[in-house]
Amino acid sequence: MGYTLLIRHCGQLLTMADTGRAGSPLTGSRLRDWHSIPNGYVACKQDRIVALGPMAELDESLVTAATQIVEARGRVVMPGLVECHTHLVFGGNRAAEFQRKLQGESYLDILASGGGILSTVRATRAASDAQLLENALHHLAGFRRYGVTTLEAKTGYGLDAATELRLLQTAREAGRQQPVRVVSTFLGAHVPGPEYAGRPAAYLDMLAAEVLPRLDPTEVPFVDIFCEQGAFSVADARRYLTRARELGFGLKIHAEQLHDLGGCEMAAGLGAVSLDHCDYLTPTAAARIAALTGGRTVAVLLPLVPLFLRQEQYAPGRQLIDAGLPVAISTDFNPGSCPTKNLWLALSVACLKMGLTPREALAAVTLNAAWAIGQQQECGSLEPGKRADVLVLDVPTPEEIPYWLGENPVRHVIIGGQVQAS
Amino acid sequence: MGYTLLIRHCGQLLTMADTGRAGSPLTGSRLRDWHSIPNGYVACKQDRIVALGPMAELDESLVTAATQIVEARGRVVMPGLVECHTHLVFGGNRAAEFQRKLQGESYLDILASGGGILSTVRATRAASDAQLLENALHHLAGFRRYGVTTLEAKTGYGLDAATELRLLQTAREAGRQQPVRVVSTFLGAHVPGPEYAGRPAAYLDMLAAEVLPRLDPTEVPFVDIFCEQGAFSVADARRYLTRARELGFGLKIHAEQLHDLGGCEMAAGLGAVSLDHCDYLTPTAAARIAALTGGRTVAVLLPLVPLFLRQEQYAPGRQLIDAGLPVAISTDFNPGSCPTKNLWLALSVACLKMGLTPREALAAVTLNAAWAIGQQQECGSLEPGKRADVLVLDVPTPEEIPYWLGENPVRHVIIGGQVQAS
Ligand SMILES: [Zn+2]
Ligand SMILES: [Zn+2]
Repeated sequence: MGYTLLIRHCGQLLTMADTGRAGSPLTGSRLRDWHSIPNGYVACKQDRIVALGPMAELDESLVTAATQIVEARGRVVMPGLVECHTHLVFGGNRAAEFQRKLQGESYLDILASGGGILSTVRATRAASDAQLLENALHHLAGFRRYGVTTLEAKTGYGLDAATELRLLQTAREAGRQQPVRVVSTFLGAHVPGPEYAGRPAAYLDMLAAEVLPRLDPTEVPFVDIFCEQGAFSVADARRYLTRARELGFGLKIHAEQLHDLGGCEMAAGLGAVSLDHCDYLTPTAAARIAALTGGRTVAVLLPLVPLFLRQEQYAPGRQLIDAGLPVAISTDFNPGSCPTKNLWLALSVACLKMGLTPREALAAVTLNAAWAIGQQQECGSLEPGKRADVLVLDVPTPEEIPYWLGENPVRHVIIGGQVQAS
Repeated sequence: MGYTLLIRHCGQLLTMADTGRAGSPLTGSRLRDWHSIPNGYVACKQDRIVALGPMAELDESLVTAATQIVEARGRVVMPGLVECHTHLVFGGNRAAEFQRKLQGESYLDILASGGGILSTVRATRAASDAQLLENALHHLAGFRRYGVTTLEAKTGYGLDAATELRLLQTAREAGRQQPVRVVSTFLGAHVPGPEYAGRPAAYLDMLAAEVLPRLDPTEVPFVDIFCEQGAFSVADARRYLTRARELGFGLKIHAEQLHDLGGCEMAAGLGAVSLDHCDYLTPTAAARIAALTGGRTVAVLLPLVPLFLRQEQYAPGRQLIDAGLPVAISTDFNPGSCPTKNLWLALSVACLKMGLTPREALAAVTLNAAWAIGQQQECGSLEPGKRADVLVLDVPTPEEIPYWLGENPVRHVIIGGQVQAS
């Protein structure tokens, strides 16, 4: 049987395939040395990639009248983006609060008047299932236009058992109703729910007793926690994540965003799949983590958060890589600290502010991002057997991707072998 | 005769019309207090706006079978963006050089190996007219997708009489072949041409003798100069701009980008229409300039340039406004220091890094940007008699525009009464 889809005349086919074949996230020089093919093709059957290589090696006998052809016309072709850290489902937005901040109101003033994360919790609890789903679908459509083909979605704006479960259901339903694959993470432990103000440990106990046992790790593969002053301490987070691990969940942590508390090292010790933010992670701690985990725990860098929050401390991406940590890049899409779906902008700012090179940054939004959400077998690189998630860009070289700052280089998005309408 | 186009059910119609009716760029509170209409309409005949107001006041008798209807469905409607500072026409790009910078090479190393602005000059001189035009049209199409409906285009990558004249011709032809209105500025005085290395005054004398007299101020309304170490001194710039003024040109200057040399104050004294960059302009000098010019000279802020150059000095936008200067915002689109067409990103970064409020930033990319290029009679606000350049956005409130960082809020672009294909 012939190919169902052929993307041909790819000026540069960035397969992102690990040349080291090490079966672990890309670290060190592997982050830069991934595979690319000049003048290449990608062939698919149904939703899978079945062959790729230089045009000269294309088996024309498998190109039939039934084969859909996408002409890349010499442009860059690469894997669909993997967005590995979003807070997709929430009610309302915080544009009015953003305006107040710009006019000089302090965080504390805004909090005192009912603003901040708890305003999103109120709006989320008040929203109907249909409203939440409509918002999620709107944002997924936006992500898709930027070439995101797999996306992690966290809960965390319900902060009670019932609403957190609703948010998981919304994310699952949103995944079903459109083509971007949605991977769910349970972040009930975002901050203590308002009913547990001042009692973070009791809140975590409630989640561990009432929610975690009701979740199926095959449907919700990850449990996440925000380890920070005002959220959860390292000790509380350790206890909670340990319990989640016993129940069979993969682990994630928001840590070292605003202070160096040691949350990253703690979670890495528990075998977390990712450590997210890392703005205050020191290169020394990073080297210890890399040694401890054998480079299997991914540091997820979120460069647009410091920009949006007007903090000047960015994660030391260059040093983290040099210390042996695999890095991924994400938007952290959420209504409070980073309302953007433009992952390409995050990629550029990671180059500008964290010292990544364009090749490293590209690996960080594809294969390493897939590792950060346990999807490395499915996506993140162009390899036979993987899902046919492919982007045709509007640029002829990969160096131009971070260069055209803030622009969307995507021309065609292909998800599971289906060319998306633009 | 009825309306040819009606945009109706505009949730908020941001007319940007000056409530002060002062006949000068918006300064102080006028930057924030521009007019907006809840639940409004805009009616056009051919390329002109002929009426606007609340839906309740729409004269239905002028809505005929021949009237094209655009339904805004409760969203924000505003004037087309005015992009008042671009280096539109150039050959090649500098993505490879950007990559080298990210890998740690210094500016001087890159210059020594033939990089920097002179590499764009070589590529521009080597490009055919057709190539230059194709590039310019590509970039104009990109700007149009972001909702730019009028754009200033500078020369400055030819740096000899013949090529600079070719660049003006390319810009003019590009303006003819697509709908975005192009306003030309002569920036032969970008840096001394390579044939005049070390002889900036001689280069300016050549331009003043051989090029300026051949230009028609009705076709090329502005003459601009880059006043900076390594480019042109304040004294040389004063002489050159004085000559340009005698020949009937409006004046612009690139000044106080990297050092506080006093170029802004000099050009303001000559009646310049705009002072561009201003990263090192002090609030004290700004107050003197505002007094000197009666607030008629616009400071054009270019917030994405420091971001892209990894400099942390941003123009003190908040203080410039408080000192009485009118401000505009632009991308500074160019291949070296700011390769982006995303003017919305510039607007957000102006809020985040320069302390503008969303309302001020919106005025800065519309009516004040029009003033900065002498187009305030034609565009920049929605008023009867102005060109029907209108955007329908995807957001319900103006506060959301800078909030969704780096995204493109444009749903429909209307230029001269014509709805553009998206
Ligand atoms: Zn987050
Ligand atoms: Zn410029």
